[in-house]
Amino acid sequence: MIADEILKELRLIVGSGGVKTGEALSLVHSGSDERNLDAAVMVTPRNTGEVASVLRLCNEQRIAVVPHGGRTGLVGGGVSAIGEIILSLAALNKIESLSADGGTAVVESGVTLLSLQDAAAKVDLATGIDIAARGSATIGGMISTNAGGMEAFRHGVMRHRVLGLEVVLPDGRIMSDMAQVTKSNEGYDLKQLFIGAEGTLGIITRAVIRLAPADEFTATALVACPSATDAITLFRKLQRSLDLLRAEFMARDYFTLASANLGPASLPAFTEAPAYLILEIDAADQQTAQSALEEALAEAIEEGLVVDAILAQSEKERTEIWNIREDSSVVDRVHPNGYWFDISVPLQELEMWLTHFNEGVATLGPDVRGFAFGHLGDGNLHVGVAGAPDKDAAKAIVYANLRELGGSFSAEHGIGLDKRQDLHRFVDPVKLALMRSIKAMLDPNEIMNPGKVL
Amino acid sequence: MIADEILKELRLIVGSGGVKTGEALSLVHSGSDERNLDAAVMVTPRNTGEVASVLRLCNEQRIAVVPHGGRTGLVGGGVSAIGEIILSLAALNKIESLSADGGTAVVESGVTLLSLQDAAAKVDLATGIDIAARGSATIGGMISTNAGGMEAFRHGVMRHRVLGLEVVLPDGRIMSDMAQVTKSNEGYDLKQLFIGAEGTLGIITRAVIRLAPADEFTATALVACPSATDAITLFRKLQRSLDLLRAEFMARDYFTLASANLGPASLPAFTEAPAYLILEIDAADQQTAQSALEEALAEAIEEGLVVDAILAQSEKERTEIWNIREDSSVVDRVHPNGYWFDISVPLQELEMWLTHFNEGVATLGPDVRGFAFGHLGDGNLHVGVAGAPDKDAAKAIVYANLRELGGSFSAEHGIGLDKRQDLHRFVDPVKLALMRSIKAMLDPNEIMNPGKVL
Ligand SMILES: Cc1cc2nc3c(=O)[nH]c(=O)nc-3n(C[C@H](O)[C@H](O)[C@H](O)COP(=O)(O)OP(=O)(O)OC[C@H]3O[C@@H](n4cnc5c(N)ncnc54)[C@H](O)[C@@H]3O)c2cc1C
Ligand SMILES: Cc1cc2nc3c(=O)[nH]c(=O)nc-3n(C[C@H](O)[C@H](O)[C@H](O)COP(=O)(O)OP(=O)(O)OC[C@H]3O[C@@H](n4cnc5c(N)ncnc54)[C@H](O)[C@@H]3O)c2cc1C
Repeated sequence: MIADEILKELRLIVGSGGVKTGEALSLVHSGSDERNLDAAVMVTPRNTGEVASVLRLCNEQRIAVVPHGGRTGLVGGGVSAIGEIILSLAALNKIESLSADGGTAVVESGVTLLSLQDAAAKVDLATGIDIAARGSATIGGMISTNAGGMEAFRHGVMRHRVLGLEVVLPDGRIMSDMAQVTKSNEGYDLKQLFIGAEGTLGIITRAVIRLAPADEFTATALVACPSATDAITLFRKLQRSLDLLRAEFMARDYFTLASANLGPASLPAFTEAPAYLILEIDAADQQTAQSALEEALAEAIEEGLVVDAILAQSEKERTEIWNIREDSSVVDRVHPNGYWFDISVPLQELEMWLTHFNEGVATLGPDVRGFAFGHLGDGNLHVGVAGAPDKDAAKAIVYANLRELGGSFSAEHGIGLDKRQDLHRFVDPVKLALMRSIKAMLDPNEIMNPGKVL
Repeated sequence: MIADEILKELRLIVGSGGVKTGEALSLVHSGSDERNLDAAVMVTPRNTGEVASVLRLCNEQRIAVVPHGGRTGLVGGGVSAIGEIILSLAALNKIESLSADGGTAVVESGVTLLSLQDAAAKVDLATGIDIAARGSATIGGMISTNAGGMEAFRHGVMRHRVLGLEVVLPDGRIMSDMAQVTKSNEGYDLKQLFIGAEGTLGIITRAVIRLAPADEFTATALVACPSATDAITLFRKLQRSLDLLRAEFMARDYFTLASANLGPASLPAFTEAPAYLILEIDAADQQTAQSALEEALAEAIEEGLVVDAILAQSEKERTEIWNIREDSSVVDRVHPNGYWFDISVPLQELEMWLTHFNEGVATLGPDVRGFAFGHLGDGNLHVGVAGAPDKDAAKAIVYANLRELGGSFSAEHGIGLDKRQDLHRFVDPVKLALMRSIKAMLDPNEIMNPGKVL
């Protein structure tokens, strides 16, 4: 429990509307994890100075602070408990400036991805990163989890979009490195430490984000390939010859289940194959995009890289194709007993990984099913195993050899609460030791999001 | 002086051929700074284990270690002194693997940029980063300085090309994070600390580098613009509509001097204008590239963004155009009394910065001349001031307001020895304090490249 005196001091800092408990808090949406609001106290500072004052107080009083952006994180990074306070960045929601010439935006960390996308679109720019949680996910949360998404193979992950950062350290000091340029080598690049730190080292309050040119006209196709390797060869070809925007991968089992359950009838009736791609390209006008993609796919069919392809002929068809990939929770609806993983596999190892995965799933039992899909360009797979005896059995198959192959057990969602064991098992021990030293250096009283990551 | 016993121990570690002093060392090229070899002892380990043993010994004995890659660095980061040892990575020169499907290479840190470029070209890939020092500069040196170059606006700086890293810490421990994938969020991304640390925190021994598709067919143009702002508008347009590979900027004074001294006659006779660009685009075949660039420039002339343009019609003409930009040491040959700066200016501020710069240079005296050119897409300018009374007078003009504008006084070359004062003057004090803490944590005995950066 947070003492009344502390609540009083917090109200002095952020105003009485800025401290929510009880009734008021129960109206707040808990986001992707029901335990997010368990702390029962939420503080919502209105600017960097207030964030600093709150942290200074909590540091003196040894009160744990759990930062919240949009609460869309998928690894329990925002889970809070009685005795802690939630610090919400929701009120730091200003886009301070956006320059078309500069191709940059200066934002407060509570700005949602969607607001920034909308503002950028007005001057024909885009964020260069997109995730389905765009309506709630905040720039600060995305920086803290180093979010990825579908466009990372072109524009990089969140780390690559951040030019400048302002961070409040656990003791209330403010580190400001708000450069608006790509090239800035001014000593150790310490902002990198806070990118992907999941709120355990400080609170991100402002950022400079690099924007990207907006897409113009796109064409979309669903493609069936004889193998994952052929899908990769096709990907590399298109990357070279066209303006390839998206290349999402679906292994057979996922496509079959999703198309059967999501429809329309044409999709489950589509050619059976081990590997499917949704490809999207850009061109100067709609017609050029359509015919360029059509030509490229006709060529690929001749070369044997593609068995069959459907080109979306309308926005409706495009939406239907994308729905097969985007509504991936269909797996949980059909098989509510699944375990999920978020891994990266180097592309040259993808075929082998898939073969081992399918074989491994089969050894777990006749009713066990494996589903793999994800962002092909990064080798980033979301993998579901349904009906396995327990999570460890599923893990053994998904993680087997992943490290030796140069992959990652934690691709884009981070560690949070849920993957701490995996981190301890897989991460280099020297790196782990350094992580602890960094944490002890920046947050000696362990007030920042304790129990997460480390 | 390094004691004989230490030399003996070093020989035991790296073999007798691996320790150079006196005569043998005098045959080594000192690189871009004559003081690089002043230490008079150079140790050349053959693998990561030997690097670790050398560092362990030096840490125990409190001997300072100066890492050397290709010795092309431009800020004195490789300068050594009597009593220190130089640790050369020249023998760690293996490309361990390169995958076309994966689009990645695993290399030892002493591999030169050119070797990696050659190996990548064999499978139609490129390094995505290019600098004129490619023949000598090493991957480890480029990571340690977070090198930039002409392609950064498309492919990012070196930090964005590094997927994995192996580093020997000052105490000889080896931190290995050799992921071969873009998406890997496995706790704090500590490899970022060593990228751009200029050898002051540890020695980079291996890296995983992300490769990029190779250019196919290019067209090159020299373009005169009515203003820097028009040059930027043109840049943004071309970035959207074409596959823009390079966009190098030259302000009037630089172009006039360079073209007059480097020729051929056609170039100094080219239209006078405040801003020049060298533009290079890519397309599926040579003819398409030529005509796409020609069309785009014709349109830009109609819109008033361009006054005049020359399209290179042969490889010879292309080389002549590029030479104007690349042989920038022509300024020093004509005005041997110049001071040089390496800054970034946010593009939306470039016009204003240039105006202030030209006005400021004029106030320094009638014979003082200012030259600015660089990588337009990043707002990265190399700025020379010739004939100024002293460096501080020049600095006052070049750095004026740069920080407030969101720019950087240290864009792509780093801090080394030469910019330490600037760092102390400009960098955020909290960031500086954290830099010192990090240095103390990783290198308590201050053996790694002492006196550099901090
Ligand atoms: C439908 C859906 C789709 C998704 N798709 C993707 C995807 O394609 N790619 C991908 O990478 N991720 C995806 N995610 C997960 C993704 O990590 C999050 O959506 C997003 O990055 C988190 O932003 P948020 O503002 O909601 O952060 P929160 O969930 O509020 O917080 C996430 C973590 O960051 C910390 N944090 C938040 N704000 C700050 C701050 N200002 N300072 C310090 N720490 C802070 C929190 O303490 C927590 O540890 C998806 C999630 C959902 C629900
Ligand atoms: C002609 C020319 C053109 C250039 N063009 C550009 C350009 O366009 N863009 C740009 O950014 N830079 C440019 N540079 C400078 C650039 O920083 C260097 O060329 C290059 O990055 C350094 O590589 P190197 O192997 O020569 O490193 P060195 O000069 O040997 O070392 C540079 C620094 O890194 C440290 N270091 C080297 N190797 C390691 C290692 N393995 N582990 C730890 N520390 C190490 C050294 O101690 C030193 O502090 C240019 C230089 C020249 C001479």
